[in-house]
Amino acid sequence: MSETEHVADVAVIGGGLAGLTAARRVHDSGVDVRVLEARDRVGGRTNSREIDGEVVDLGAQWIGPGQNHVKGLVSEFDLDTFEQYVAGEATFRADGEFFRDSDPFEALGLPTQLNLLVAIKLIDRYGEQIPLDAPWEAPKAEHWDATTVATWRDRVVRTSAGRDAFDSIVRALFCVEPAELSLLYFLFYIRAGGGFDRITSVRGGAQQTRITEGAQAISQALADELGDRVHLEAPVERIEHGDDAISVQADGISVSADYAIVAIPPALAGRIEYDPAMPAKRDALTQRMPMGAVIKCVATYEEPFWRDRGLSGEVVDADGPVGLVFDDSPKGGETGSLVGFLVGNSSREWADDPAGRRESVLESFVEYFGPRAGDPEAYEDMVWENEEYSRGCYGGLCGPGAVTGVAEALREPVGRIHWAGTETATRWCGYMDGAVRSGKRAADEVSERVGVRQADEGVTAGTVD
Amino acid sequence: MSETEHVADVAVIGGGLAGLTAARRVHDSGVDVRVLEARDRVGGRTNSREIDGEVVDLGAQWIGPGQNHVKGLVSEFDLDTFEQYVAGEATFRADGEFFRDSDPFEALGLPTQLNLLVAIKLIDRYGEQIPLDAPWEAPKAEHWDATTVATWRDRVVRTSAGRDAFDSIVRALFCVEPAELSLLYFLFYIRAGGGFDRITSVRGGAQQTRITEGAQAISQALADELGDRVHLEAPVERIEHGDDAISVQADGISVSADYAIVAIPPALAGRIEYDPAMPAKRDALTQRMPMGAVIKCVATYEEPFWRDRGLSGEVVDADGPVGLVFDDSPKGGETGSLVGFLVGNSSREWADDPAGRRESVLESFVEYFGPRAGDPEAYEDMVWENEEYSRGCYGGLCGPGAVTGVAEALREPVGRIHWAGTETATRWCGYMDGAVRSGKRAADEVSERVGVRQADEGVTAGTVD
Repeated sequence: MSETEHVADVAVIGGGLAGLTAARRVHDSGVDVRVLEARDRVGGRTNSREIDGEVVDLGAQWIGPGQNHVKGLVSEFDLDTFEQYVAGEATFRADGEFFRDSDPFEALGLPTQLNLLVAIKLIDRYGEQIPLDAPWEAPKAEHWDATTVATWRDRVVRTSAGRDAFDSIVRALFCVEPAELSLLYFLFYIRAGGGFDRITSVRGGAQQTRITEGAQAISQALADELGDRVHLEAPVERIEHGDDAISVQADGISVSADYAIVAIPPALAGRIEYDPAMPAKRDALTQRMPMGAVIKCVATYEEPFWRDRGLSGEVVDADGPVGLVFDDSPKGGETGSLVGFLVGNSSREWADDPAGRRESVLESFVEYFGPRAGDPEAYEDMVWENEEYSRGCYGGLCGPGAVTGVAEALREPVGRIHWAGTETATRWCGYMDGAVRSGKRAADEVSERVGVRQADEGVTAGTVD
Repeated sequence: MSETEHVADVAVIGGGLAGLTAARRVHDSGVDVRVLEARDRVGGRTNSREIDGEVVDLGAQWIGPGQNHVKGLVSEFDLDTFEQYVAGEATFRADGEFFRDSDPFEALGLPTQLNLLVAIKLIDRYGEQIPLDAPWEAPKAEHWDATTVATWRDRVVRTSAGRDAFDSIVRALFCVEPAELSLLYFLFYIRAGGGFDRITSVRGGAQQTRITEGAQAISQALADELGDRVHLEAPVERIEHGDDAISVQADGISVSADYAIVAIPPALAGRIEYDPAMPAKRDALTQRMPMGAVIKCVATYEEPFWRDRGLSGEVVDADGPVGLVFDDSPKGGETGSLVGFLVGNSSREWADDPAGRRESVLESFVEYFGPRAGDPEAYEDMVWENEEYSRGCYGGLCGPGAVTGVAEALREPVGRIHWAGTETATRWCGYMDGAVRSGKRAADEVSERVGVRQADEGVTAGTVD
């Protein structure tokens, strides 16, 4: 195959938020950069599409307080935002029973409420003991990392409805089953998102605000700035890295550079061939951060009819195939839209059955919102675990033993290769904000090395931000 | 790159014991087969080398009672065997203290002994409740799969020496930390190896017998039969699979076939590009069976001097970098040899420091066997997690949630692709015997389909064994 060859100071692998943020930042510091993106679009795990005339996010979509880095980009690119609709009663189903309340927590009964309050208090108290840049150094790191979230839940939450609620929240936050998660990783992740209330809430929390143009618009704006430095449909297959240089080989294109920033999830980074091979810990890490599983399903309607019935559109369902639902109507709510999440094992059950999935999701919507929900104007969904260049969403997660065993390798550069991606973030890990932060960090690591080299060579480097 | 193209009925990916067994079996049934092996040698996770004039196994080396399938090959190829040396006292270290006894278990003190006896009894009793072909259907599957082996150990084993002993055994059996393992997978694996005593013992157990020519000789004999149907240095990069045919593309060679048998660990199978992509569950599985970590270290001496001091050479060390040691002297014991295993986190700590590793291992040998052990004739080791085409050893393992969540996909054919490898075995999973069994099963699955096709076409298929 004939290859186009490029030369740059820095090669960035992955054109999602992390990679594009990193690329823009090194570019702004006066450094030549090239971005290689496997897909035919930028934005990675954001994906905004027009459905039934409105922009819909089939990937990441919310931003909230404390996420100042992604918010900075939203402001900078003059994107419009609006609040997630959440007025009215939410719905919670467990043990086959529906609870409806403006605060569904109130409907759970006192023993369950107390139980969950204790659990939440412990999650936050334990979280405060975890150094976010080195969770393996927490005083109880070894014990917590040897415990699954399911085991801990059984110890702390005693009622059946409480366990159902707890599991639903875990699945909604992580897209895996509570059995799969290390308690240490779970505590770290929630702490990195500012604590339990902040990470789970709509108002005042991580689900507060939507972007009118769709979340992918951020990546698109970054890519527009970078222009032809971004190469699409260029899945990287091999990285040769020596003492003096890097050679990145993608399908049909190669980049010779001084440094590389790999800005894709560890599970995907592990599928690249490295020469020389990665150190043992780094390779083991790529085998130990499997991606969560989620199908995001959007149905559109002439109007958000549930609002008239006093329903917020929010559902947490411990029984059905759909784990979580939100009102997904566009700003102003002139038309209606619902977004449902199939998460964890349920996602994989339905991943390879598009027709059955649509039927099952709409049946669930009817159970929550009545017969009108069964007859949408349009229906579309996205199976993230079937995406060759994501292999799951929202992100890569640590099962027991991985944080204390191999997570040190997450951000540790290997020779001239640096690592970005939301999985490497120490704040808002797993979120768009974490992706942006990680891109900035990796860019600064590399810019400093390029600056030192250029200074050595008597070249004036651009200002490093 | 110019490619050599071959046409066959069946393409086998992986020239280890599983792949070669499968290939030989379909070949014997009159079916055209090609084997693509990534390395420049066959044998996969067996690797027999001459060190200091004697054959030494740096990979899998033992066979034992109940392993009739690998034993069948040993007999068929007329390989010589001898018993693992184990006469004399074994050594156990925990809490900085050495225990020496012909049965080190006796030296542990009564409370610890009773504790461990209860644990072993439970392991076997629970194991009997697990259907080996569908461990996810065990009555307590969900609970066991949500529990780490470390959590279960803390519940069942109360003394510090007992926990150290337990952990050492887990590491020696699995090459991972007890925190990383699903209790369900642990119980399944031990049951698949005939129970706790059988899987952990030398006499009467899985470490009973060695092969004089080295374990790799089995694969070599299989490969000799297959002749130029085995292609070395042909790492498979891509498998296209349609309704009618398969195309397997390796570096420099491609095979068009009717069926494929992928006989490599799930973690490696996941790094192949499939078109169309794998179903969600299969891909998730490849992200959820990380390889264990082990460095096998062999030191040779003029004579097995520890035998004269009444020591068997067997060591279980809960404190040092070396977890497990055996007398590795050749048949007859005219010269001496010790083999040490660095397992789990200890293996990764030392993986990228060859000089420090040698020093540390020999220091440990001196602690066990005196100063003579520090001055070997030769020293050699093999870091299995640094092997590009193994990425760890002994095998791929399930953390919590994986067996109940995705393990159904282990053996389930995807279109024309079938799966082999010791990880897919229902007896002696993780052992050479499991590899051979898995190869036979996959061969029979494929031969049946080829036979049906040939019958349809009016061709007489060879006899299917």
